[in-house]
Amino acid sequence: MARTGRRPGNQDTRESILAAARTAFAEHGYDRASIRMIAASAGVDPALVHHYFGNKDQLFVATVQVPIDPAEVIPRVVGGDRGQVGERLVRTFLGVWDSPVGITAAAVMRSALTNEQMARLLREFVIHRVLRRAMTTLQVDPAEAPLRASLVASQIAGLAMARYLVKVEPLASVPPDVVIAAIGPTIQRYLTGPIA
Amino acid sequence: MARTGRRPGNQDTRESILAAARTAFAEHGYDRASIRMIAASAGVDPALVHHYFGNKDQLFVATVQVPIDPAEVIPRVVGGDRGQVGERLVRTFLGVWDSPVGITAAAVMRSALTNEQMARLLREFVIHRVLRRAMTTLQVDPAEAPLRASLVASQIAGLAMARYLVKVEPLASVPPDVVIAAIGPTIQRYLTGPIA
Repeated sequence: MARTGRRPGNQDTRESILAAARTAFAEHGYDRASIRMIAASAGVDPALVHHYFGNKDQLFVATVQVPIDPAEVIPRVVGGDRGQVGERLVRTFLGVWDSPVGITAAAVMRSALTNEQMARLLREFVIHRVLRRAMTTLQVDPAEAPLRASLVASQIAGLAMARYLVKVEPLASVPPDVVIAAIGPTIQRYLTGPIA
Repeated sequence: MARTGRRPGNQDTRESILAAARTAFAEHGYDRASIRMIAASAGVDPALVHHYFGNKDQLFVATVQVPIDPAEVIPRVVGGDRGQVGERLVRTFLGVWDSPVGITAAAVMRSALTNEQMARLLREFVIHRVLRRAMTTLQVDPAEAPLRASLVASQIAGLAMARYLVKVEPLASVPPDVVIAAIGPTIQRYLTGPIA
């Protein structure tokens, strides 16, 4: 027969799971939230959560609506010369934000700044999914890793705000290489240099 | 007779002037907006604008609702040893945000991230009232000053976001001296060091 277009039943289930996941990740944090807990809250079988979203990591990425998969991006940034990781991180970040998905990234960031639940989700995402893994790969001293991660987050978030949200000139319109030359060394020091 | 408390008539005039000023600064920018233009838009005599708010600078500060007067703070930051200005800037910034007025500062920043008019006002404020003056006093090469100013803005805004708005730990709760040691050198390089 005719095409049915979107399937309302499945779409509703998917949305219920996402809503339950958002609440669980925001309330309990990434580590303590579980697929079982989220499924119970959405009134579905855990197998259905796996069916729609894959594992907990993938569900989390879907929940936060971040338009990239860190599992693909991080190895490119932290692999290679350790002394150039700051530069590669800034280059990768600009690549995402200057691309069409940059609009989604800006929306996620705006909502995190005005919505406490989204703020918690984004914090969890940045810390657990992105920076903690990068730190491990870079063999950063575990005692210093959390502070280093939050310093990186501060400069990257500020760059996003100045270049893409509030559009502070000339930072908003200079070529990527200018940004990389200026901010790459900051990220490099926060990751591997002296900070005390 | 009895105290009259607030004076509704004057209060309304004051609010009309502030509303006209907000629009003028956002639409025309700090440099091109004038007291005469703002007075005309509010339907009052320019002398009344001066009476309530003083000069254009002071009107602008009132408009943006920034809880500090840069004219008092900047000399303390840029005066003294030029090699320690990054450290002094971070220390001063933390002093304001850790004080009771930090709540107002956070509200101003949130509104700038969700409201285009407030974003323009804050940008004007940061660039014209704060950073341009600091750059002049520090005798930064005028050709590089705008980029340096926007780099400083990016790290300071990111620090505000990570420490006060989104509360990324441990940066949100470490003592000021830890923040100053980590971020002071970044600000110092953006102001006076190599950035290319």
